[in-house]
Amino acid sequence: MFRDDLIADGATIQAGFDALFAGYPDLPVVQGMRYATHGGKRLRGFLVLETARLHGVDPVRALMPALAIESIHAYSLVHDDMPCMDNDALRRGLPTVHVKWDEGTALLVGDALQALGFELVTRPDVGPAEVRADLALSLARASGAQGMVLGQALDIAAESADTPLTLPEITALQQGKTGALIVWAAEAGARLGQGDTQPLRSYAEALGLAFQIADDVLDVTGDAAMVGKAVGKDAAAGKATFVSLLGLDGAQRRAAELVDRACDALSVYGDGAENLKQAARFVISRQN
Amino acid sequence: MFRDDLIADGATIQAGFDALFAGYPDLPVVQGMRYATHGGKRLRGFLVLETARLHGVDPVRALMPALAIESIHAYSLVHDDMPCMDNDALRRGLPTVHVKWDEGTALLVGDALQALGFELVTRPDVGPAEVRADLALSLARASGAQGMVLGQALDIAAESADTPLTLPEITALQQGKTGALIVWAAEAGARLGQGDTQPLRSYAEALGLAFQIADDVLDVTGDAAMVGKAVGKDAAAGKATFVSLLGLDGAQRRAAELVDRACDALSVYGDGAENLKQAARFVISRQN
Repeated sequence: MFRDDLIADGATIQAGFDALFAGYPDLPVVQGMRYATHGGKRLRGFLVLETARLHGVDPVRALMPALAIESIHAYSLVHDDMPCMDNDALRRGLPTVHVKWDEGTALLVGDALQALGFELVTRPDVGPAEVRADLALSLARASGAQGMVLGQALDIAAESADTPLTLPEITALQQGKTGALIVWAAEAGARLGQGDTQPLRSYAEALGLAFQIADDVLDVTGDAAMVGKAVGKDAAAGKATFVSLLGLDGAQRRAAELVDRACDALSVYGDGAENLKQAARFVISRQN
Repeated sequence: MFRDDLIADGATIQAGFDALFAGYPDLPVVQGMRYATHGGKRLRGFLVLETARLHGVDPVRALMPALAIESIHAYSLVHDDMPCMDNDALRRGLPTVHVKWDEGTALLVGDALQALGFELVTRPDVGPAEVRADLALSLARASGAQGMVLGQALDIAAESADTPLTLPEITALQQGKTGALIVWAAEAGARLGQGDTQPLRSYAEALGLAFQIADDVLDVTGDAAMVGKAVGKDAAAGKATFVSLLGLDGAQRRAAELVDRACDALSVYGDGAENLKQAARFVISRQN
């Protein structure tokens, strides 16, 4: 059920991007935008579509916000992979944008994908103006210097710090870097339906942390071909991770506890939230 | 009158940024955001505040959109100055962000300033949700791959082209790269007042083109100390500019014609638009 929906939603999102970019000029920056939004797990887009279903929102209204969060996520990956940040040559098993094109193009691709995210949540077909303004404001806060960029900045600062990060510090870093967009994606359904965002927020906060712990576990246990990007980098760089702080078993146990907590937060939705619960379990069992 | 208002509005905008960033953590990325939004002509912010006055909009409502366009403009400068783009070490007479900090910080500063722009136009104090959603949608379109980023992409493509750009091509490039944000800034007052944007759009389209021609003239006639950034770069690179295509006299004449056209577009506003007319004349007489 969940697996089928994740695949179906991924195909819907891909078709949405294809239709969208058909109206764009054929320039390297647009080719890079298509490339960067192609593939991936589509977990954030799925969360938008699934929480919209849970709130009885017309799927047509949820599609653009689903594309929006995938667009913002893609922008963050393109910029994160650049030489002045993580300097990664591989993403989803393919050359990163600055490798396939050049750094200038990668910079513009990321910039344009960020703008696209805000365009997509404010298009008239998303619904009432109140909802669109709310989606844009919350997305700006989730992605900016008090959200995702804050997490990235803390990550950079940690690299030049004298002592490795503590568990509370690394948790705060993750809440920005990965957590903020996951929380936005999960809350989007409630925002679209003008309902209470609190249960989905609690769910997504636990889910986001479990997701990052699983990432750290994969960095130790995975191989690059399966994960689709370089692994073992954090350990090699001597960076504090959830695994270095909790041990491999401890990290896996902590992730499982967080998944339980995420599922508990959905009790108000009854049986309707089964897909979201399976998504949470998927997050810690995935191989990429 | 215009000069006094430009200075007063610049001070209002600076005070707005100071108050805003007071609530942010003290990290290099935030220091860079403050730095990049400090100083400059504030022409775009002035256009927001002035066109809002023209439409009888409460200045308190116009302040955040004025900060927003200055934030988006600042992001574009920070990224444009990076080594993978124009590789400029000097901006407004001071070291550029990647020189003063590093490239990773400059990347994040630009990314965060873009998000901030969208946050500022959608804050509740800007007014009705319809206005906020409209401001965000138009800003996203003006700054993205069909607006400013398109212009930057055309600029990059021109560098590796076999033949220099023609006048229509360089005009299209400019309409994206500089024009789109100037048009957004000038239209903002009409959007805030839910009035007709057409006269301000016509004004700003002519103004934006005049502005870019004046920039090309300054690149030839100005000196770096006065202009506050490197000059003579376009000619040295053999790039087509309005000056290379029209000659110095021809370019100055064309800019003056555009200023006349910009002023004519404001006739519907009568005497109330005197400040905007003076702003247009200022744009082609400025020394930086």
